[in-house]
Amino acid sequence: MRAVDIIMKKRGSILNPHGSSLTKDEINFLINGYVSGEIPDYQISSWLMAVYFNGMTFEETATLTDVMLHSGDVIELEGINGLTGPFVDKHSTGGVGDKISLPLAPVVAANGVSVPMMSGRALGHTGGTLDKLDSITGYTSRLENDAFRKVLAECGFAMTGQTKKVVPADRLLYALRDVTGTVESIPLITASILSKKVAEGSDALVFDVKYGTGAFMKTPEAAEGLANSLVKTAQAMGKKSAALITNMNTPLGNKIGNFLEIEETIECLQGNGPKDVMELTYALGTLMLMLAGKASTNIDGIQKCQSAITSGKALELFLKNVELQGGNVNKLMADVGKRRSQYRCDFKAKQDGFINIDAFKTGLAGVSLGVGRNRTDEDVCADAGFILQKHTGDYVKAGDLIAEVYGKNEECFSQALPVFESAVTYSKTKPEEKPLILKELR
Amino acid sequence: MRAVDIIMKKRGSILNPHGSSLTKDEINFLINGYVSGEIPDYQISSWLMAVYFNGMTFEETATLTDVMLHSGDVIELEGINGLTGPFVDKHSTGGVGDKISLPLAPVVAANGVSVPMMSGRALGHTGGTLDKLDSITGYTSRLENDAFRKVLAECGFAMTGQTKKVVPADRLLYALRDVTGTVESIPLITASILSKKVAEGSDALVFDVKYGTGAFMKTPEAAEGLANSLVKTAQAMGKKSAALITNMNTPLGNKIGNFLEIEETIECLQGNGPKDVMELTYALGTLMLMLAGKASTNIDGIQKCQSAITSGKALELFLKNVELQGGNVNKLMADVGKRRSQYRCDFKAKQDGFINIDAFKTGLAGVSLGVGRNRTDEDVCADAGFILQKHTGDYVKAGDLIAEVYGKNEECFSQALPVFESAVTYSKTKPEEKPLILKELR
Repeated sequence: MRAVDIIMKKRGSILNPHGSSLTKDEINFLINGYVSGEIPDYQISSWLMAVYFNGMTFEETATLTDVMLHSGDVIELEGINGLTGPFVDKHSTGGVGDKISLPLAPVVAANGVSVPMMSGRALGHTGGTLDKLDSITGYTSRLENDAFRKVLAECGFAMTGQTKKVVPADRLLYALRDVTGTVESIPLITASILSKKVAEGSDALVFDVKYGTGAFMKTPEAAEGLANSLVKTAQAMGKKSAALITNMNTPLGNKIGNFLEIEETIECLQGNGPKDVMELTYALGTLMLMLAGKASTNIDGIQKCQSAITSGKALELFLKNVELQGGNVNKLMADVGKRRSQYRCDFKAKQDGFINIDAFKTGLAGVSLGVGRNRTDEDVCADAGFILQKHTGDYVKAGDLIAEVYGKNEECFSQALPVFESAVTYSKTKPEEKPLILKELR
Repeated sequence: MRAVDIIMKKRGSILNPHGSSLTKDEINFLINGYVSGEIPDYQISSWLMAVYFNGMTFEETATLTDVMLHSGDVIELEGINGLTGPFVDKHSTGGVGDKISLPLAPVVAANGVSVPMMSGRALGHTGGTLDKLDSITGYTSRLENDAFRKVLAECGFAMTGQTKKVVPADRLLYALRDVTGTVESIPLITASILSKKVAEGSDALVFDVKYGTGAFMKTPEAAEGLANSLVKTAQAMGKKSAALITNMNTPLGNKIGNFLEIEETIECLQGNGPKDVMELTYALGTLMLMLAGKASTNIDGIQKCQSAITSGKALELFLKNVELQGGNVNKLMADVGKRRSQYRCDFKAKQDGFINIDAFKTGLAGVSLGVGRNRTDEDVCADAGFILQKHTGDYVKAGDLIAEVYGKNEECFSQALPVFESAVTYSKTKPEEKPLILKELR
């Protein structure tokens, strides 16, 4: 077998311009050869570009995913530490103010489903669940496999990041795609996401694929393409799967930041969450319960999610998780509503009108405030962020408070505020309200 | 400027799937960065694959060619050693029995056109002009620039190979394309061919783009695509240019080999050349004379080419070139018709019928005989080859002599003959005669 022949098979020819599907042996040869250093990066990068143009079938993508996930550790859950499935996880393609994982995991766990959740960190304009959790005093979001299983067994969900031993092929491929113009490929994105999610031991996967300015996918069509690929590929791998296509043109919820989003999570779990955050939590939770066989219909699922909150069970599990993962629960609850950065600016309406708050620009302004980071080696600030008093579609008068803005220091506002100012636009007519959840795919 | 942005510009996006044309600055940045080692091969290979899929405009290809040729030495001709233009060269995409450069150069030079000819060596099933010339006792096909200009000034044409200083970017890119599945791209092939041809100092270029089993391009359409790209790109670079699309389904001429093709060249120049070799020599020669302003019409051009032969001027120049490049003219003329490998087999018709002799399989059989090579570091045998007594379209009776076959040793026949046997097929009906010259492009 020669790498160049596999590249040309995918590339195709004048008579077969869309190329041909690769076999498991061929994909194995390429990926394992790359990980072991036998196949050079310049062959992999031309293959990646051929995949960008000619795509992959769902079966082929499933094979790539399978080969990638077996390049490293695959976490065993069933039967260890008394754990029993079904294990169900959710993956979001990322956004601004997207703290849904935080209320969602305990709501689903409260209904008897194990949620082994591996999350990421903030990068660019998007936030990261692990950075939010790490803003809880004492909390550790890095768990070894044994500790992860122990927390999962005790409170029904556990939160951690991926170790370097999980899917090393993805780290290598992602770094290469990043510099070779091959990031924006549905099958490659699918295999990257799925390989990590399947490696963490889930039986079923729910995807929140976002579209809009603050999302990786800018249009509903692109988001649907990815969602369809994720669901179909997961199913081809024997996993139950479903997806929602959701709007990320404006930030989710009232609070954007690290500790600010932990605070909003507790408000959600106390029954006081913002409408959009609750809508998405219930919709994703319902899909997770249905895939796990714990809910029979959408209405049944939503009621079970709501009960987890009204009964206090979800909050109880969340605080138990905080305790199990080293967080100081008393300090956390005392901090809610009070812990704020000392560097504050009020952002007021410049004119009368119906406002729109752009997710992408808000996220960029957040990076300047210290909510996120541009490079993976930068620190974030736990207490920076926005508390939105007005939202997209609201009518404001000039001078009305739109947002409390908290920064990592005094200087950051000179960069952050002009960016946030460009995020807020005004119009004389009320803009058409767009649904938060555009579509469900199973 | 970042390489990844240039890659993505060529690659395009969902909204712009065919990508955009690159500027001279961008192409300069990529190619010079690659040659200097600042841009890694894995970025160049993904860019090459994006070019494979999205192509390049003629202007863009001209820019790539220009940037590539300036990566190394550009040979100055005009005014040095008393040389005056126009300088016109021919390039063939390669075939089996294709010795046209050898009679063509002196025929055109005899009409007052300077022909600075840089040729290649045999590789795979195709022969190489330099290997043929080197079969002349004493002949050197490696000339330094000064010697090259001196020979050119004295006999109107000179024959050499490319030095390592000519277009180093092409050597690097070609090696990378070979292992990354990006050889078969019209703009990349165009830039590779043209950069070397323009670097050798020609003002006008005629291309013989072959199609068929023995050609790089298998179909007339593919050959026309390349021919059109070569002519239009050369014109975009300010060079006069024209091309012929010619048939390479069966070998050219009666003799295939190294010294055997020198012998056939002398037969051509003595007025006894095979019909197909003369037809192509006159057609290409006419185009060269017309581009040089030395012929006004096709008929004028053909008559001038014929005159060069009937007057003996072309043969005189050929022998003068042999002498100037170190060859032993007396030995050469004494060798004609006599010098043969001692290892000979007669290949006879297996059955009655009209025969077809396949160019590709004949070329492959030739490699086994020692005419060509599979790797650039292999030697060739000067005296191996075929003398065809019958040609495609001829009717044979079982037992008729089809070809005298000469090998580098006794053992080679056991490999070569079965391959040549598969090259010769028989049919009951006379196959339709295909024209040698399919089309002319200017």
